[in-house]
Amino acid sequence: MTAERLVVIGGDAAGMSAASQARRLKGPDELEIVAFERGHFSSYSACGIPYWVGGQVGDRDELIARTPEEHRERAIDLRIRTEVTEVDLPGGRVRARDLETGDEGWTGFDKLVIATGARPVRPPLPGIDAPGVHGVQTLDDGQALLDTLTGVTGRRAVVVGAGYIGVEMAEALLNRGFEVTVLNRGEQPMATLDPDMGRLVHTAMDGLGITTVNGAEVTAVRTGADGRVRAVATEEAEYPADVVVLGMGVAPETSLARAAGLPVGVSGGLLTDLSMRVRGQENVWAGGDCVEVLDLVSGRERHIPLGTHANKHGQVIGANVGGGYGTFPGVVGTAVSKVCYLEIARTGLREKDAAAVGLQYVTATIESTSRAGYYPDASPMTVKMLAERRTGRLLGVQIVGREGAGKRVDIAAVALTAGMTAEQMTTLDLGYAPPFSPVWDPVLVAARKVVAAVRQD
Amino acid sequence: MTAERLVVIGGDAAGMSAASQARRLKGPDELEIVAFERGHFSSYSACGIPYWVGGQVGDRDELIARTPEEHRERAIDLRIRTEVTEVDLPGGRVRARDLETGDEGWTGFDKLVIATGARPVRPPLPGIDAPGVHGVQTLDDGQALLDTLTGVTGRRAVVVGAGYIGVEMAEALLNRGFEVTVLNRGEQPMATLDPDMGRLVHTAMDGLGITTVNGAEVTAVRTGADGRVRAVATEEAEYPADVVVLGMGVAPETSLARAAGLPVGVSGGLLTDLSMRVRGQENVWAGGDCVEVLDLVSGRERHIPLGTHANKHGQVIGANVGGGYGTFPGVVGTAVSKVCYLEIARTGLREKDAAAVGLQYVTATIESTSRAGYYPDASPMTVKMLAERRTGRLLGVQIVGREGAGKRVDIAAVALTAGMTAEQMTTLDLGYAPPFSPVWDPVLVAARKVVAAVRQD
Repeated sequence: MTAERLVVIGGDAAGMSAASQARRLKGPDELEIVAFERGHFSSYSACGIPYWVGGQVGDRDELIARTPEEHRERAIDLRIRTEVTEVDLPGGRVRARDLETGDEGWTGFDKLVIATGARPVRPPLPGIDAPGVHGVQTLDDGQALLDTLTGVTGRRAVVVGAGYIGVEMAEALLNRGFEVTVLNRGEQPMATLDPDMGRLVHTAMDGLGITTVNGAEVTAVRTGADGRVRAVATEEAEYPADVVVLGMGVAPETSLARAAGLPVGVSGGLLTDLSMRVRGQENVWAGGDCVEVLDLVSGRERHIPLGTHANKHGQVIGANVGGGYGTFPGVVGTAVSKVCYLEIARTGLREKDAAAVGLQYVTATIESTSRAGYYPDASPMTVKMLAERRTGRLLGVQIVGREGAGKRVDIAAVALTAGMTAEQMTTLDLGYAPPFSPVWDPVLVAARKVVAAVRQD
Repeated sequence: MTAERLVVIGGDAAGMSAASQARRLKGPDELEIVAFERGHFSSYSACGIPYWVGGQVGDRDELIARTPEEHRERAIDLRIRTEVTEVDLPGGRVRARDLETGDEGWTGFDKLVIATGARPVRPPLPGIDAPGVHGVQTLDDGQALLDTLTGVTGRRAVVVGAGYIGVEMAEALLNRGFEVTVLNRGEQPMATLDPDMGRLVHTAMDGLGITTVNGAEVTAVRTGADGRVRAVATEEAEYPADVVVLGMGVAPETSLARAAGLPVGVSGGLLTDLSMRVRGQENVWAGGDCVEVLDLVSGRERHIPLGTHANKHGQVIGANVGGGYGTFPGVVGTAVSKVCYLEIARTGLREKDAAAVGLQYVTATIESTSRAGYYPDASPMTVKMLAERRTGRLLGVQIVGREGAGKRVDIAAVALTAGMTAEQMTTLDLGYAPPFSPVWDPVLVAARKVVAAVRQD
């Protein structure tokens, strides 16, 4: 019997988790595994880049979970600096190019995993490719930014975008001693929150000395006589900049897959079934930042680039490819982030998400503390909860606060997954002791208030 | 129309929450509320006493959520230092004695709430009432202990009992500069955990400089020539002591209720229905530390004295008494505690709880970290998970670790309430970012391992 061959496109979280899990289930005599990665690195934590740039993580290698050599020791033929340029589905083969030598050739597959990730949004603005303007998607990006930060003499940094990457990079640059201005297109920073909660983030960022400009549409990057960035221009003003970081979000990298005729959704991500197999395909799987996932609350597909999903996808794909069984049922849209001391969390639907899918809702917002009010370091937090009108079903939770605020969103994430009503949540048996929580956990206080709102509606 | 009269026995969490909620729903013209409390204080956080004794909470009054005067301002006739001595159910009246004047008299009721709390276990050992031996159940107890701690010259403290109160008091005494020995009857401290997890607590307490003696059955308290405590004797040894704190647990205080013929369960707590009405009664409710609650995982009644349950009971009782509606469906047995930096949490069933109700199970124990491994202050934690054999239904979780460990138990508490399987938990969409969690949250790592154990069983 000849071994089957599994080809994996993309050597980061989803791709290499899939490869590793498949290898655990099938040895090299049964399954040959070839993986292609166009970058220099494998299996690294892109989510950790802001903390490496900010100095909390000392060394790039700490972000690498498993090196190409380690994968090869596990009988996974990982070829770095090798870019797949074409997928031939009917022929069961991919064409790949060695980026060092330029050599190109075809590799046949019995099974294919597409884990091509996402690419940063980078609008074609004048000057956007000038030296001193940086994305932060890959370890190479991070190294280039660090080189700029250590080489540059000025101390003015502009971050374009006020989502997760934007606020995390604002913290990193502040930690590196820069004056930071964040240019935000939207009404408030953290558009993944409702604007009333985003306003709390804005206020806190002000308090940290980060200047946030809302409604700022960037029109150009201005360069100096040396060709380097010197300012970022919006429709209204110009912001001097010695370094610029782009945090304008990412889009699924699916050009190869689309060229091969594979189905994508409204966000441009690949569409899969519950086993992470690409729809309509027998032997092609996809996972990570290049796919859309089912939002269990809205019933719609969404694109949520997040390492924790990518790892889960990889596990599921690897199990199925390796002859086991696993499914990824979907997400509820949980995310946590921080900017300095401020913790920001969300799960489920925002007001506009609910409205967009025809759900009517009531909301409640409460203030409470992370610990019993009398306990040292009890820190304030604001919790907003959405519940469906009439039924009272939990639809979403947003939390902004300090230490102890962010991970409380997990309570709501599990409750959303279970389809609980806010009323059911009011009697949840959550951990209580004065150093950990007020006698009514802030999430329960919010649930009680939203229950009252449902009843009065 | 004459107002109905509600009588409440017990002026702490359950009783006064019930009174306050009933008052919110019905004004004094509809409902007269009389509450009796034999102590000096109302609505205080007994759970906060260890932190007041330890010095983290500066003032006793910070532990008082609402004073008797504040209750009276809300038209609740709270009579402190007044002890109910008899409940006459057929006559619809209670007899109460003013502990200051000795005056005694009957008060009629239309509706009755029993919230008599719990009393500390205090075995009739020789010397147990000697000066220098303290319970820590009430604010009066806490003050007496503080007086001893400031007056005593020796620095040797013995804590009898290694449950929540025992370990919290060990921390408090350590903070006050005492050498602390904890005498523990059981195999390991924290008998609310399985012994393998309790052993981790033991090791950590050793590292903190707290001496824990397991298998130590106290036989007597030895006194000196001055009549004060000088040592605690066990069957094997004698432990010198300048102060002794008793933390041997509590039992439901139901002597009044039992004398009135009301039903109690195997732990001696009152038995209620889902609306917290005492079984077989039309107009009598009970809540807080004097009742048994339904354990949703085992299907059995248990006695769980905990402020957070007492508050929920009070809300439910107050809603029903006030003409609204509410139920307390039960608990899953969640508890968190800490001793210095060490966080200890549990929910659901231990191995012996599962065995006792006929459930067969598999277990998995994993080590992980509170944050991404590369992020500063990522601290280790151990998570143990029990799942039912064959079905894989989650049965319980225990966590021992440092900062960020304890409240993770809430994930499992909600999952238990929802009846999830461990396999369902493996795809939970929990908050992930490097400062908050590894890419696989420790609870998910445990779930994955227990799923594998279920499959292999």
